[in-house]
Amino acid sequence: MNYGMVVKVLGNLLLFEAAALVVPLFVSLYYREHSALAFMYTILILIVVGGLMAKIPNPSKKIRSKEGLIIVAAGWVFVSYFGALPFTLSGSIPSMVDAFFETVSGLTTTGATIINDIEVLPRGILFWRSLTHWLGGMGILVLTLAVLPAIGVGGFQIFKAESPGPVSDKLVPRMRNTATILYTAYLGLTILQIILLLLGGLTLYEAAIHTFGTVGTGGFSIYNTSIGAYNSSYVVMVIAIFMIASGINFSLYYELYKRNWREVIYNSELRLYLSIIGIATLLITLNLYGRIHGGLFETFKHALFQVASITTTTGYATMDYEIWPSFSQGIIFILMFIGGSAGSTGGGIKIIRHLILLKLVIREISKILHPRAVIPIRVNGKMISADVIAGVTSFFFLYLLLLMGGTLLISLEGVDLFSSLTSVAATLGNIGPGFGAVGPTQTYSAFSVPSKLLLSLMMLFGRLELYTIFILLMPTFWKERI
Amino acid sequence: MNYGMVVKVLGNLLLFEAAALVVPLFVSLYYREHSALAFMYTILILIVVGGLMAKIPNPSKKIRSKEGLIIVAAGWVFVSYFGALPFTLSGSIPSMVDAFFETVSGLTTTGATIINDIEVLPRGILFWRSLTHWLGGMGILVLTLAVLPAIGVGGFQIFKAESPGPVSDKLVPRMRNTATILYTAYLGLTILQIILLLLGGLTLYEAAIHTFGTVGTGGFSIYNTSIGAYNSSYVVMVIAIFMIASGINFSLYYELYKRNWREVIYNSELRLYLSIIGIATLLITLNLYGRIHGGLFETFKHALFQVASITTTTGYATMDYEIWPSFSQGIIFILMFIGGSAGSTGGGIKIIRHLILLKLVIREISKILHPRAVIPIRVNGKMISADVIAGVTSFFFLYLLLLMGGTLLISLEGVDLFSSLTSVAATLGNIGPGFGAVGPTQTYSAFSVPSKLLLSLMMLFGRLELYTIFILLMPTFWKERI
Repeated sequence: MNYGMVVKVLGNLLLFEAAALVVPLFVSLYYREHSALAFMYTILILIVVGGLMAKIPNPSKKIRSKEGLIIVAAGWVFVSYFGALPFTLSGSIPSMVDAFFETVSGLTTTGATIINDIEVLPRGILFWRSLTHWLGGMGILVLTLAVLPAIGVGGFQIFKAESPGPVSDKLVPRMRNTATILYTAYLGLTILQIILLLLGGLTLYEAAIHTFGTVGTGGFSIYNTSIGAYNSSYVVMVIAIFMIASGINFSLYYELYKRNWREVIYNSELRLYLSIIGIATLLITLNLYGRIHGGLFETFKHALFQVASITTTTGYATMDYEIWPSFSQGIIFILMFIGGSAGSTGGGIKIIRHLILLKLVIREISKILHPRAVIPIRVNGKMISADVIAGVTSFFFLYLLLLMGGTLLISLEGVDLFSSLTSVAATLGNIGPGFGAVGPTQTYSAFSVPSKLLLSLMMLFGRLELYTIFILLMPTFWKERI
Repeated sequence: MNYGMVVKVLGNLLLFEAAALVVPLFVSLYYREHSALAFMYTILILIVVGGLMAKIPNPSKKIRSKEGLIIVAAGWVFVSYFGALPFTLSGSIPSMVDAFFETVSGLTTTGATIINDIEVLPRGILFWRSLTHWLGGMGILVLTLAVLPAIGVGGFQIFKAESPGPVSDKLVPRMRNTATILYTAYLGLTILQIILLLLGGLTLYEAAIHTFGTVGTGGFSIYNTSIGAYNSSYVVMVIAIFMIASGINFSLYYELYKRNWREVIYNSELRLYLSIIGIATLLITLNLYGRIHGGLFETFKHALFQVASITTTTGYATMDYEIWPSFSQGIIFILMFIGGSAGSTGGGIKIIRHLILLKLVIREISKILHPRAVIPIRVNGKMISADVIAGVTSFFFLYLLLLMGGTLLISLEGVDLFSSLTSVAATLGNIGPGFGAVGPTQTYSAFSVPSKLLLSLMMLFGRLELYTIFILLMPTFWKERI
């Protein structure tokens, strides 16, 4: 194990976090808030700790799968831990566990909050809270499109066009190449949405914060009523459309840029993704029309927003879907298990996995009628190997196992079963709100310390595609020499 | 398509049902009940209809997969339809839809009921109601261990020791052979349990009825409080143990008879099955001890009974698990998705599928550490092919798709979401009781006609391993010439 390199990379990550904290520091200073001090202290701590770690002499430059897994998992935990300091140091979130939960929720772009009254917090603090979504989204893009396929985490080949091949030497240049493309798209979406929200009359501060929550598919707002605080249909629709745009595989934006229209138009994952959002919105609109939201456009707007929010695992809300009839609630519940596209900032099980599983079901039915036929499964014209199918299957099953295990542990809180179930579904899927005790008008503040830590772990599990965390919890990982 | 043969087999099935109805007819006559007339009429109708169908001249003796699928599905529906006649003709269940629901529930060994006060019904009617469990259980054993593997319904190879091979000519002799073994075991369990219940002080009538519900893993009782009506711990434990025994692969009883101890002791499915029951019982006992049921033995007894009942998809109850704390309720909820062993009368997803999926997850984790290793998945020493894994996966995914689709349709009733979800889980899994509106103290009587028909369809889906029904609903099945 090349621990030297692990420590060095983590150190650099903390220095990067220190740099990122300069932005909320300036926001605090601009609004002349005391929280500026909390940012200064945190930046100082990060420079000292990160600087010392980055300076460690490393014996070898090789990063293999094992080191990669540790860096990814520990990186997310370290950045969350230090990122929580401004919340505690400023007194905004007195409990360290609460602050850690909130930061993990931010960096995993979950958007689950323990803050009951968000509107009393300083602006700098709220800015940092939302910025964690944006930083987390950036981390995820590179993680799922470049790092994880390279270190061979189960079934990640499907997310990449080129085959992974031998790992160690190629990792860095390929990562850089992919990362540049993705960051350009991500930055483009960010700037475009900020401009559109500014045109809608929002201040730069509000536009930036809600753009971070949207393009990172996070969901932190600065209002207790989330996006419901805005009466403007324009603002609501802009956010809805950008949530949907952020749940699309970002490499498709690169194809668009290269004018490969066919690659985009005939992309099966994109088609399934948009169909799910379209059908769910239509069904909810039909179910609600004339009942709750008045006019057809109002009904459609709220239906589309909530559907886009849950499907992309953002978690913003314009209203409380728990006042909807069971049918519409049922659709929202089902969408909690769909997720964004692969290679987007959206979390959850992801469209591509559902697509492969659906095609598998169709093939099995054909096989009963034609027992001797060999029918390959294709996605976008490429054959899906038995290996990838096994990877997708085991991900899906492990996801449900974690959901069930987590539900049981949360139910020890005494909260009702359905709330327990959806609290885990909402954190494991990086969504944010669930049903009942964790519905869109509630927060996670009432949970005990062990439950908050468990739900934080669930967010990390979901965000890091299960295996990254799971494998680190296996004793064999640490015992075996590979 | 060899329709002649299909009609002939169905006709024989109805004649067989007529013969079976002689038993409740005698029960009615013995207790001098008016319902005897209803049985006579039904038997007459069945002899006429079944006789005419069986007499149809058939051009060919060949039964292929396609005819096999139609016979299995149509057979279950036909027998349910005619089996419902005694309920309507006697006036016990006035509505034909309700009577159909009840009979489907009986024959699929689900045990979901629409009868609010069971204790006022005539004894002959109650006897027939419970006998449908026993007949259904018999049908399922042959279906899953002989018919379905022979006609190649997805992934059924795993349920059989010998490889399926070419179909058409071998079907009948192999079926007969397997059937004899299974029926002997089934009959043995039935007789043994009746004797043990008689020793516990039950009348032959009560012993027979509760044995039918147990060995068929059905769950119909003659008391509104189900097995809670018996104070005797002996009776409760006998039923619990026989529920567990009925959820074991029946071919293992044949191995026991042949003294192949090792085959039984090292059977992975049996071990997982017993471990699940053991761990669930232990956790619930620990969670409840000192809280609800008083002493340790009482707590253990209720925990074991409810765990055995839900895991084996029987559905009997000694008390209402909805008064338990969320944690214990959560375990019951999870058990609703486990199911019995393959080749037992238990329904649901089944232990063998979970076993294969679990092994798949473990392999995927190993593969991250050893990317170049080829690790086969073995169950009981036999390698599981990629084909079988694909079959198991697609079954699992289709099961969840049906669960979600069914939940949405049921939620249109206006019943709350969790009740909708568990009503479908309880019927698709052939369990019976769920949570909330369909909890153990409730019935399915309040549902609308379309919902009752939908839930009946769910019971058939679950009982006939999804594909048998699913494929008949595909237009291509009827169009293609195979």
